[in-house]
Amino acid sequence: MERIPILRMGEFLLVTIQVDMHDRLAMRLQDDLTEKIAETGARGVMIDISSLEIVDSFIGRVLANIASMSRVLDAQTVVVGMQPAVAITLVELGLELPGVLTALNVDKGMEVLRGTLAKAVEEQGGDRHPT
Amino acid sequence: MERIPILRMGEFLLVTIQVDMHDRLAMRLQDDLTEKIAETGARGVMIDISSLEIVDSFIGRVLANIASMSRVLDAQTVVVGMQPAVAITLVELGLELPGVLTALNVDKGMEVLRGTLAKAVEEQGGDRHPT
Repeated sequence: MERIPILRMGEFLLVTIQVDMHDRLAMRLQDDLTEKIAETGARGVMIDISSLEIVDSFIGRVLANIASMSRVLDAQTVVVGMQPAVAITLVELGLELPGVLTALNVDKGMEVLRGTLAKAVEEQGGDRHPT
Repeated sequence: MERIPILRMGEFLLVTIQVDMHDRLAMRLQDDLTEKIAETGARGVMIDISSLEIVDSFIGRVLANIASMSRVLDAQTVVVGMQPAVAITLVELGLELPGVLTALNVDKGMEVLRGTLAKAVEEQGGDRHPT
């Protein structure tokens, strides 16, 4: 069961992190996620960390890496559900997750993704993915 | 971290089961989920089991219990993402998850929930939750 599932919801992907992220699991998530983005053509990735009570520099780096990789693959990442205590600790530790969008919950995260997606389409003067 | 997060997506709740479900964790999920249904007025619950490689009679019973409890609270449950091998084993073991709706993935599960919801509204000759 050593694999974090990636759920497809329309044009977005959802990842819920529930377990301790050790190196191997984090690497595997990055691999799986990039593959899934390429496979599905997803335009957004939502990472739910509501069950994490601790976000250390390792997890912070993993999240930032995922965001960067997704961006290269033309998908926007948003981290949702951060516990208030986690936010406090992150800032106190100087880990402010640069380059990672955040939202309070899944619904709000969805809005953020839709918003950035709409903006991207507008800036390019048209829909790059006509269906 | 001994808690399975419950994500709210619009009028539905999403639970991703990634870890081994022992007794205490299953009880806690039932408690959390029923509370969350009452709190949010959710009309549907989606349980993703795509990362489970084994579904034994215990997990089968937990899923059936969750479905029954949700139904009493006026929410429909659908189990999504079952691995083909799991489906084979379940049937071979005679565990056919009575009373539990299933769907291939989250998108399809969403359709199922929307479908049953629309039907329920129709049968009652109106929308019980006008917004």
